[in-house]
Amino acid sequence: MGSKPMRERRWTPRPTGPGGRNQSRERSGGQQKRHFRQRPRAADGPALLYGWHTVKAALENPQRRFRRLLATENAVRRLAEDGVKLPLTPELVRPDAIAAQLSPDAVHQGLLAEADPLPSPAIEELPAEGIVLALDQITDPHNVGAILRSAAAFGVKSVVMTTRHSPEMTGVLAKSASGALEYVPIAEVANLARALEALKDRGFLLVGLDSSGTGDLADLPLASPLTLILGAEGRGLRQLTRTTCDYVARLDLPGAIKDLNVSNAAALALYIATTRLKTVAG
Amino acid sequence: MGSKPMRERRWTPRPTGPGGRNQSRERSGGQQKRHFRQRPRAADGPALLYGWHTVKAALENPQRRFRRLLATENAVRRLAEDGVKLPLTPELVRPDAIAAQLSPDAVHQGLLAEADPLPSPAIEELPAEGIVLALDQITDPHNVGAILRSAAAFGVKSVVMTTRHSPEMTGVLAKSASGALEYVPIAEVANLARALEALKDRGFLLVGLDSSGTGDLADLPLASPLTLILGAEGRGLRQLTRTTCDYVARLDLPGAIKDLNVSNAAALALYIATTRLKTVAG
Repeated sequence: MGSKPMRERRWTPRPTGPGGRNQSRERSGGQQKRHFRQRPRAADGPALLYGWHTVKAALENPQRRFRRLLATENAVRRLAEDGVKLPLTPELVRPDAIAAQLSPDAVHQGLLAEADPLPSPAIEELPAEGIVLALDQITDPHNVGAILRSAAAFGVKSVVMTTRHSPEMTGVLAKSASGALEYVPIAEVANLARALEALKDRGFLLVGLDSSGTGDLADLPLASPLTLILGAEGRGLRQLTRTTCDYVARLDLPGAIKDLNVSNAAALALYIATTRLKTVAG
Repeated sequence: MGSKPMRERRWTPRPTGPGGRNQSRERSGGQQKRHFRQRPRAADGPALLYGWHTVKAALENPQRRFRRLLATENAVRRLAEDGVKLPLTPELVRPDAIAAQLSPDAVHQGLLAEADPLPSPAIEELPAEGIVLALDQITDPHNVGAILRSAAAFGVKSVVMTTRHSPEMTGVLAKSASGALEYVPIAEVANLARALEALKDRGFLLVGLDSSGTGDLADLPLASPLTLILGAEGRGLRQLTRTTCDYVARLDLPGAIKDLNVSNAAALALYIATTRLKTVAG
């Protein structure tokens, strides 16, 4: 993955005047929001979006502000067939013109867009209902992308992650998310423990997942609103994150390997939680 | 991912006489085995294994035949502390000597081994019990690695995949599998539909997973021995695979995105199946 972000940055963004997330933060962020956003991410540039699902979902999202859209004739025709109204005029190109902007293994399916990052909601703006997923410094963009995709698939209300030690919402991550960036609001926070405390104050049950947890997630008394917290593979949850949780649970596995890839663990935790909450509600 | 296998091949294997899987196939494969192994994979070279879990599990597997082991002093000490007996003398090197053999983002944790691929059991050798997982031309090595890891975590008896259109059991895949290559026998077959028919003849219930399936997996009357079959993202199960299945089921998802990353889908399917089979057995 190391070489991909570099390759992806080959496409130098065109200057389009004041825009992007950092500026809007400065303009619109009141005191309350600033509380969770003390460190705007220096690296935050435009989001590079490629691949059919990723770009189609972005084009259908009225919140997205586009700077450029490169598309093959085929892709433009398929979008029209699917009833997608284009918010900007695409630059019609041949597939290899798109491939040349990306890493060799990137599957672009004739679509490449450059867009502003989406706004990040403040913790206080999140509805106190359903499931919120929090990621404690998970850095691999493939994994975070797959987690976002599962979050969208399970109807998660928001994903909370730290501004630092999280990947950017662009490129490989956006591709792995398969359109999920457009469906799940991502709340970026400077301090995860403080954000979790704020969720707890608003009635969320905080359940961390860690292989050293004290019980199986499936046996816990889960309730809505619920925040599930996942840590990075190997390191797990940070100490301060753990102490903020109401419960730290594990996923009991019957086989020779005792922990899953983090995106697999996330999918399983979301399945268990949504199934349990449905049973409680029903 | 495209650049990684090339980088990994920079380490030219030392010739060590007749070895490797293709030769042993020719020597030991009787008529019955040949039935499923008509096309030995031309690209099958030695397995390149790196990372703590991956190499440690391989060193603890008496079936593994090693050609070389590069290790840092630190890694050798940690292995000794964990009681791992080394089956060959490691070449003590500095971390950057290992890093130089791999792609820049590879997390090797001081260990790099070159080993013969493990033998592939014939379908007829698989015990008719528990869960067998079959992969219908899933090609991404990260995904197949994560699926193997989940298979080992859920105690899957074997993973069946096609000799062609499957990634090699080496490098990125082995790292993502996190040691699972040593725990889950991988049956490589030339023809998946024929292998599935052979499993059906031996009493396995065949359940395919596809977003166009006719019912939710959780609602199916699952029974052991069970074969779960997963297709590639996008393409799904091939037509002949589908018609061979007893059921084709889907995973019902409540959110805006209706399909998961394939390794996430595999983890979920294995969780549902193991939970259901446990309930049936109890």
